[in-house]
This record gives sequence, C-alpha cells and structure tokens, in this order.
Amino acid sequence: MTEPQHQSPLEPAEFDDAATGGRMVRRQGVTAPLGFRAAGLAAGIKVSGRPDLALVFNEGPEYAAAGVFTSNQVKAAPVRWSQQVLKGRRLRSVILNSGGANACTGPGGFQDSHATAEAVAQALSNWGTETGAGEVAVCSTGLIGDRLPMDKVLAGVTEIVHEMAGGIEGGTDAAHAIMTTDTIPKQVALHHPGGWNVGGMAKGAGMMAPSLATMLVVLTTDAEATADQLDTALRRATARTFDRLDIDGAMSTNDTVLLLSSGASAVRVDQTDLDAAVFAVCDDLAAQLQNDAEGVTKRVEITVTGAKTDADALEVARTVARDSLVKTALFGSDPNWGRVLAALGVTSVLIDPDVISVSFNGSTVCANGTGVPGAREVDLSGDRIHVVADLGLGDGEATVRTTDLSHAYVEENSAYSS
Amino acid sequence: MTEPQHQSPLEPAEFDDAATGGRMVRRQGVTAPLGFRAAGLAAGIKVSGRPDLALVFNEGPEYAAAGVFTSNQVKAAPVRWSQQVLKGRRLRSVILNSGGANACTGPGGFQDSHATAEAVAQALSNWGTETGAGEVAVCSTGLIGDRLPMDKVLAGVTEIVHEMAGGIEGGTDAAHAIMTTDTIPKQVALHHPGGWNVGGMAKGAGMMAPSLATMLVVLTTDAEATADQLDTALRRATARTFDRLDIDGAMSTNDTVLLLSSGASAVRVDQTDLDAAVFAVCDDLAAQLQNDAEGVTKRVEITVTGAKTDADALEVARTVARDSLVKTALFGSDPNWGRVLAALGVTSVLIDPDVISVSFNGSTVCANGTGVPGAREVDLSGDRIHVVADLGLGDGEATVRTTDLSHAYVEENSAYSS
Repeated sequence: MTEPQHQSPLEPAEFDDAATGGRMVRRQGVTAPLGFRAAGLAAGIKVSGRPDLALVFNEGPEYAAAGVFTSNQVKAAPVRWSQQVLKGRRLRSVILNSGGANACTGPGGFQDSHATAEAVAQALSNWGTETGAGEVAVCSTGLIGDRLPMDKVLAGVTEIVHEMAGGIEGGTDAAHAIMTTDTIPKQVALHHPGGWNVGGMAKGAGMMAPSLATMLVVLTTDAEATADQLDTALRRATARTFDRLDIDGAMSTNDTVLLLSSGASAVRVDQTDLDAAVFAVCDDLAAQLQNDAEGVTKRVEITVTGAKTDADALEVARTVARDSLVKTALFGSDPNWGRVLAALGVTSVLIDPDVISVSFNGSTVCANGTGVPGAREVDLSGDRIHVVADLGLGDGEATVRTTDLSHAYVEENSAYSS
Repeated sequence: MTEPQHQSPLEPAEFDDAATGGRMVRRQGVTAPLGFRAAGLAAGIKVSGRPDLALVFNEGPEYAAAGVFTSNQVKAAPVRWSQQVLKGRRLRSVILNSGGANACTGPGGFQDSHATAEAVAQALSNWGTETGAGEVAVCSTGLIGDRLPMDKVLAGVTEIVHEMAGGIEGGTDAAHAIMTTDTIPKQVALHHPGGWNVGGMAKGAGMMAPSLATMLVVLTTDAEATADQLDTALRRATARTFDRLDIDGAMSTNDTVLLLSSGASAVRVDQTDLDAAVFAVCDDLAAQLQNDAEGVTKRVEITVTGAKTDADALEVARTVARDSLVKTALFGSDPNWGRVLAALGVTSVLIDPDVISVSFNGSTVCANGTGVPGAREVDLSGDRIHVVADLGLGDGEATVRTTDLSHAYVEENSAYSS
C-alpha cells in the first residue's frame, strides 16, 4: 500500500470554480463522489517494485458509463477490449495497470486483457458483487510491444479487491499506481453546490497529442445521469481539454478516458450542469498533466485569435504548438517571434501574413506581419509563456497547452525501453 | 576571400553515378559547368565577419532558368521577388546573402530585395554585361524579422562583381558565403559523358522539412535546354530529393532552389538525360544536407514499403520521420520499435496494424504488428539507421531522410536569435 500523499502540482490545493460555483479539491480523486471505492498496489508488473495496479469500483446503484479512446489506428489490446465493453454503456469497474502497454502484442495480448477483466469480475463476484467481465474496462500503460506478466496481474487482481477503500486513500493509491514517468499523482474532485460530485485521476507525462495520448483518465460522479448524458458531457469536455494538450505531437496506442456514474447522490442533473462540472475536472487534470510533462521547463499556452472559425484557430494553434523550433526557442527564453510566423505559415488554413500580430506574455512582438521595436527584449525567463497569434481574419479562437522542448525531454525519451 | 576548401562531408570525394554514367565530384559546384562565374565574400552583414554574400553569374550564351520555392504561406521578401523574376523564365544572375532572412520585414523588406537586384544589375552592366534587375534572383537566409543592413549589402554587391571567377574557387567561395549554422560548404558537380555538366551548391542545416526549408540551392548547367525542360527536371528532382528531407518538420520562409542554364557546352539534351543528371546532383546535395543537419548524431532513412500508392508511402514515412519519440529513441540507439508502430498509427492513411512489419538496419523487429524475439537487442549504435516499415497493403514505396533528435539539436536551437 502506498502512503497517501497530498502532493499538489499546482497551487492552490483548493479553489472555487467560477463556472459551477463548486469547490475544487486536488487531494481527492475518483473516490470523492459517493458510491466509489478504489485501490492501488504493487503487483510486481514493474521491475522497480513500485505500485502498478489500480482498481476503481462502482457500488451503484447506477452503472451508466461513457468512454473516449485514442484515434491512433494502432490500438492496444485493452483499448479494443474496453471499446467493446463500453458498447453496453455500463461499467462496474475499471482495472488499470502501469508497467506495460499491452500494445502490439497480437491475439495473445487481447486474450490477456479479456482474462484480466474475467479475473476482476470473478474476484468482485466472490467479494459479494455479482459482476460480469463485460462490465469491466481495462487500461494499460507502459512500454509498447511486450506481453504482460499475467501471473502477477492475476494475483494482483485477487488481492486488490480486498484493498478497496472509499475516502481519499483509495483514490490516491489508485492515482499512484497508474504513474509511469509521471513525477506526481494527478487527481481532483469537484464538490458541486447542488449536492453531487465529480472526481477524477489521470496519468500521462509525455507522448501526449491531440486526441489524447499515453493518457489514462478515470472520472467518477455520483450524479444521476444517463449514459447519453455522460457521453455528451465527456466528449464536450475532452474536445476542449485533453484534446488540446499537445506535448510532443505523438499520440498513444492506449489513451483512454472513462466516466462512470453511481447515481449515489440521488440528484438528477441536467446536461448543462453536468457539462460544466465534467469540463472543470478535465480542465484541471489537463493542467496538471501539462505541468508534469516530460522534461518541461516552461508551461506554454498557444492562443490563436482572429481566425475565420474556431476549428481553423485550433488547427493553427496545434501547428505552432508542435513546431520544434518554436519549442526550443521557448526553452531558451528566446523571444524569436519569427519562428512563430514561420510555423503559422505551414498550416493548411489559409492565412494572410500581412495582418498577423503576435504577443508573448502580453507584449506585442509582431504587428501586421513585421517585428515591433523591442520585440527581441521581451523577458521570457519565467516558467509560463503565453503566445497569442491574432490572424486578423475573423472571430475564431482556440488555445492549446504545450511545453518547451528541453534537454530533459531528449534525455528522458532517448532511453525509455533500454 | 575564403580559402577554397575541398572538405567533403561524405566519402568518397569522387564517384561514378550509375544512372547517368557521369562522374560526380564533390569539390566542385556551380562553376563546374561552362559559362558560369561565382564569388563569395564578407560584406559585413554577419556580425561575426564571416563570408555572407555570394553571386552566381551566367555568361550565356543562353539564360533559361527555373525555380521552386517554399510552400510556407509566410514568404520572405527575396522569395516573392525571385518568384516574380522567374516569370520571365530567364536569369543572368543570383545574389545570395546569409546573416539575415529578410522575412517578415514588411514593404520595406521587399524594397530591399528589389534594390539589391537593381544594384547587381547596375554593377554587372558597369562591368560590361547589360543586365536588368528582372534577370537577377535574390536569396536570403538567417534570422527572421530584421531588416538587412542595406549599406553593407549594396557596398558588397559593388565589390563582388569584381571578384567573380570561374573554376572551382569562385563556386567554393560562394558555397561558403551562404552558410549559416552549416559546418561545411556543400557542393557537387556531375560531368556527363555526353560532354555537358551540372553543378550545384546548397546550404541548410536545420528547419528542413517537406517542400524544402531554410534551404538555398543554386544549380547550374551548360547543357542547351529550354526553360520548360529545366522546370520539368527541377520539379521532378526536388520532389524526390529535397522534398523528402525532413529534419525537424519545420519549413522555412526562404527556401529556394534555382536552376540556370548557360548552353555553353553547345550540347542539346533530351529530357530524360537532363532529369537524371539534375536528380543525381540534387540527391547528393540532399545527402550532404542531411549529413550536416543541426545536432545530428544519426543519419536516419525511413522507408515505407507495401503501401497502396507511392503517395501513401510518402505520407506515412513523413509521419514517422517527424515523430519526436521515434527520433529521441534513435538518438539513444534504442530499438524501441513500439514507437514506430505508434507513429504509423497516427497517419491519415488507412493502415492495418496486424500486417505491419518493421526492420532496423535489416533486422526484423516486428512482424504482423507484434514484436519478434531479439527485437530489443538490435544494435543501433552506429551513425546510420535504416528503418523499413512494410505496410503489407500494396506496392507503394517511398523513403524520407531525417536525423535523430539530440541534445545538440536542442542546444543549437534554443539560443539562435539571442
């Protein structure tokens, strides 16, 4: 068992969320809503002996669930298993492991995911809650290409069911057990003034790109909501949060975001309130992921305004967020705005270079496509950089979160499998 | 004046080209064909005092020319000037400067390019060759966003006309003067058995991506060829050489490739021979650019076979060549083939993960989408890595040249403007 840690990557540890009027608490996670238990332990999947197996269990009375998955065409076995399970639109449990992605492992790998779900269903049934494998989602993260040590996974499953706890310990243990290159666990809970809650945990520190990446997120709520409501809220939230977190342009084979509802608050929510609450939790988890991204020394936001449409703005912001030359310049605190212009010019969206303006942390560095006096003296030495590019063509707007490209990123990623 | 250097980035310094039956000589460049003079000198544009101004001059009797330019929507002033000039389909001269890109410099920057061409035309006319500004292409490379020191540029233009020389010295001086972060000049000449020649020089060490990037290339030939022939040969050659060199996914505002014909050999060539010769020179210059790319420790070729079409193969190869996680793994000599699979899955081309095979330097690491025994033991410690991904869907095939993503790349690019 991991000692519960209340380590927060961002200050403050608690704050009010203006949109929902709720209280956000970063030391709580998936077990903050009523009706959920969770656990995390070291099953021996990781050679290091660190925690590597997590379970989230929905005690009900409702079991509606929704999920979004990687758009990578190479999908890991657990993704394919969980997509199949989600067709039933209900989940009793989610089993997650770090220490191995179970991706590119062939038919045997898929059988491993299936066997893991069967083992969880059996253990929960033995424990007193009749459960079928078709109600158990499976998530895996780690190195691509190796089969999981199934003896350890299955022994861990038997054990973890007995470790399940409500309260913050269970959720925190689970948040620890899904970490790979993360340096801290990521979780948050929203206590809604309407008497219901949303909680969540996330892992992912690199290989993050649009449409999610090496990112596992489990969200829970005790609101009464249909699977349709959950699905709508989840898609709306992920499109504006995790999908706009682009650390290195890579996209994982294993990305999964799940939302489970227990209905245990007995409060029926409307779509607007649910959307706002799920967005608030996803947005905070995305900020925590950005904050702990591999090798990050600068947290960077790229905002594009003045595009013809929001979709255009997003496309352009992504192009800039992925540009290696922009990202290395920001690592060097170098206000090299010309690289932003060059990156903008590569987009598939039609732009007019002569009307573009760019600012760094509020200081205009480029107006109408040319530099302004003092542009090279803007101070970017802090650890947060906000780049705003105004295309001057319309009202479309979007923001993408990214990071600089640092020595530490290269270091961390040059020897991951060996 | 720079002392001529015969430094070659690749061995051997001379070799036979099988396709044309010609002799390739890497210590010669734009002045190898008859009818061309060139020069390079330090005009004081670079603060360092290193050579920064180059001139290539076509003595005729013919002046047909063709050019291809960056597809970046943000085009530097010299690119817009040269595109306009090339509409006349003839060139007497090309003036090139390093030490400043003259990009994002507004209407004043365009006037600077125009004034530079006028000054070259005037100097050549004074020297005895009646020339108009509309026969002078302009190329610039360096930092984006600053106006050029025009007093130095114009003084340099007056001087450089008197420095023009045939033979290898003139071409080599010019190849030196266009260098930015390049560590060595890049040039090559093909002596065709049919009695005519093609020569070329190139600069560019980073920010290279499809459709060319911070890359300036001037090619010359003494073959008798029409502007149509030159245009066809140039487009065919660049599509398969410079367009498939992708160092960091960035694309410059200034990329320019020009081909000038003097007709001085009095040998009329057919399209097939011209295509083969221009391709051979472009292919060798592309290899030299890859070899000297910023921060390179590994030269990497990504070959995709078994695609439905060559275009699909190229699209997929580019996606892999740009993947930061693949490139950092290769820097670490890590045969992490799972990252290649994950990168393949991101492509917009429809693939079937279950039939993909991957090899590193000829050793199969993945067959039918799963790892093979010994895959993690493949030795990638050498400085060349050939990744082949067979999609198993058809006969389409393409190769993209790239490099690893190293500490040196981050270092070099994190403090370029400051």
